[in-house]
Amino acid sequence: MDLNEIRKDIDAIDDQIVKLLEQRSQLAVDVAKYKRENHMQVMQQGREQFIIDRIRDAVSDEMKNSAEITFTTIMDLSKCRQHHLLTEKRDFHIHKPMSGRPLAATVTKGSYSAVACDRFFDGKCDVTYVKHFEEVFEMVEKGEVDYGVLPLVNSTAGDVTATYDLMGKYNFYICKTIDICISHVLAAKKGTKLSDVKNVFSHEMAIRQCSEFINENNLNPIEASTTAKGAQIVAKTDETDCAAICSAPCAEMNGLEIIADNISDIKDNYTRFILISKRLEVTDNANVISLSLTLPHTPGSLYRLLTRFSYCGLNLSRIESKPMPSGFADMKDDAFDFIFYLDFIGSIRDDGVVKLLNNLEDEMKYYRFLGNYEEIREQ
Amino acid sequence: MDLNEIRKDIDAIDDQIVKLLEQRSQLAVDVAKYKRENHMQVMQQGREQFIIDRIRDAVSDEMKNSAEITFTTIMDLSKCRQHHLLTEKRDFHIHKPMSGRPLAATVTKGSYSAVACDRFFDGKCDVTYVKHFEEVFEMVEKGEVDYGVLPLVNSTAGDVTATYDLMGKYNFYICKTIDICISHVLAAKKGTKLSDVKNVFSHEMAIRQCSEFINENNLNPIEASTTAKGAQIVAKTDETDCAAICSAPCAEMNGLEIIADNISDIKDNYTRFILISKRLEVTDNANVISLSLTLPHTPGSLYRLLTRFSYCGLNLSRIESKPMPSGFADMKDDAFDFIFYLDFIGSIRDDGVVKLLNNLEDEMKYYRFLGNYEEIREQ
Repeated sequence: MDLNEIRKDIDAIDDQIVKLLEQRSQLAVDVAKYKRENHMQVMQQGREQFIIDRIRDAVSDEMKNSAEITFTTIMDLSKCRQHHLLTEKRDFHIHKPMSGRPLAATVTKGSYSAVACDRFFDGKCDVTYVKHFEEVFEMVEKGEVDYGVLPLVNSTAGDVTATYDLMGKYNFYICKTIDICISHVLAAKKGTKLSDVKNVFSHEMAIRQCSEFINENNLNPIEASTTAKGAQIVAKTDETDCAAICSAPCAEMNGLEIIADNISDIKDNYTRFILISKRLEVTDNANVISLSLTLPHTPGSLYRLLTRFSYCGLNLSRIESKPMPSGFADMKDDAFDFIFYLDFIGSIRDDGVVKLLNNLEDEMKYYRFLGNYEEIREQ
Repeated sequence: MDLNEIRKDIDAIDDQIVKLLEQRSQLAVDVAKYKRENHMQVMQQGREQFIIDRIRDAVSDEMKNSAEITFTTIMDLSKCRQHHLLTEKRDFHIHKPMSGRPLAATVTKGSYSAVACDRFFDGKCDVTYVKHFEEVFEMVEKGEVDYGVLPLVNSTAGDVTATYDLMGKYNFYICKTIDICISHVLAAKKGTKLSDVKNVFSHEMAIRQCSEFINENNLNPIEASTTAKGAQIVAKTDETDCAAICSAPCAEMNGLEIIADNISDIKDNYTRFILISKRLEVTDNANVISLSLTLPHTPGSLYRLLTRFSYCGLNLSRIESKPMPSGFADMKDDAFDFIFYLDFIGSIRDDGVVKLLNNLEDEMKYYRFLGNYEEIREQ
């Protein structure tokens, strides 16, 4: 047996397959054009199943699954081409970033969100501080502020569930994200020693990120709505056994002394913050597209969706499936239905991508375009 | 133009493609056999790229992506077949469920986890109650108990992050899951009225699930380690403005009165609990396979993984990507590297599935088989 000979045989087969694929795709385009001119429906479910059944009948047992998957992919790609050729593009209405000094909303002065807000605008913005994440979304949706800043995911503790839950309830676009290095300190009133501390106040996420420190020192964690709120509680209390987990600037702002620093479980601890707006802003460097959608309960539905993104040269960089929040209760077929959050590397300045997104919007039971933006990484 | 004529042309092309696919696959098997007999490496990255480059050169511009995706899929499926034919199967060591009265560990008496534990064994087990989720994992790993019971995901509030974080640290298999309907009540000392209540104690998840009720009644939520712990705090305190969010049996167990019932935001509220063991138990009805793994940073790596599962007839039912917990810090290439948690419908009693899992275990940088089990749904 000569390996090179066999490889030449395979190459010869590939040459034939590739020619047939091109012919097939052209015929499928002809069919689609004809249907469009005669106002016939593009999709015909019965025809697809007929083709798959024929294919399965034609091959040996051990090739049945492979042949079905290959032909499903061929047909899906063929439909992508038809969409690309025949869909009338509906352009996004893209805004440039606001000129002038913008107004932004975020939670509590001194919180990490406030730090992120400052970085997004290099300090050149007016900030309204609110108490809860939900108020940020509300003010953005109502147009009371130009932008809002919220935490999305932490590299140690995972998703900020509160933000994800609210994302489905409000209209907004993500304009940018920034990854900020989180360095927690333990802060208390002047003169407090670590051995005095019993109760530590902080945001649930910060508590989780410092769990080893908390366990080692036998501390009792108490949840506050933000890290900054925890520091305020400690600053105001008369108790002498209280401390807060927060950032160094936040400790200083509340007149607290740092009694232990860099107390996170792991040192390479980043949180990703999102900058949101009512307007679709897409900067020149924007290269991430975020979508949320539901998928039909059919085998391979995620696989087939990914085929369509691959066709447009969009590569998946992140995927999350979350139970539907309560606002979606009427859409649920099952208590455990999921919303998928997908990030792709790509741009809506690409016509093919716009057409794909137009098509998804038309086809999907639930679909949202969440923005096309740049991910900034703090050094 | 006659649609039926074109369709016949397409069918004729498909007949040719299918024959070529079968020939191609057989040649690829011959190559793989030859390589194995001559102890040559199976994978040759250069050859694959050579094929893709040839294919892209041979087709028109608008077919380049489609042709590349189709041939990548054809080659991946071909490798699946080779693996199936040539891999020596390493069988799983499967245990039957324990006979006799088992010993199980779970958190706090009266918690929903304790209810789930009772349901798994129909009450026929001895239960050790511990304080923290981590102790459950520890006792299972050390063999101090036969089983452990933990919450995994809630249909309203999302993943139980604490459980996911611990899953990477301990060795165990999932033996079963059960979805339990969660009906929260507000419970307080006898004589307390709803209007008296200011502070509510409960587990963070329960607080999140009742957020509308908490906001409407202007209550101040305080986090406890479990719902049962919250009820104990309320039972012991001398304050008259405290209440707990917990289950009705838990309220009763702590001598508390129910002052509001069914207070969850949505009524169709389920939590999924897992039954874990050190032994790999697979019941006759087991039809879900759970895996956790990392994926290489190459375009389409998830897509190509899903091709391999499709080949074995395994359909994805759930996907999660989570930031790597701190224990994995040394494996991280990037602060935001993800671990994927995948659920498939399938059985390790299927030889093809076993071989696929054997291959994944050999190839993946990080891979864990988490069990093959039955999902029980409470009516």
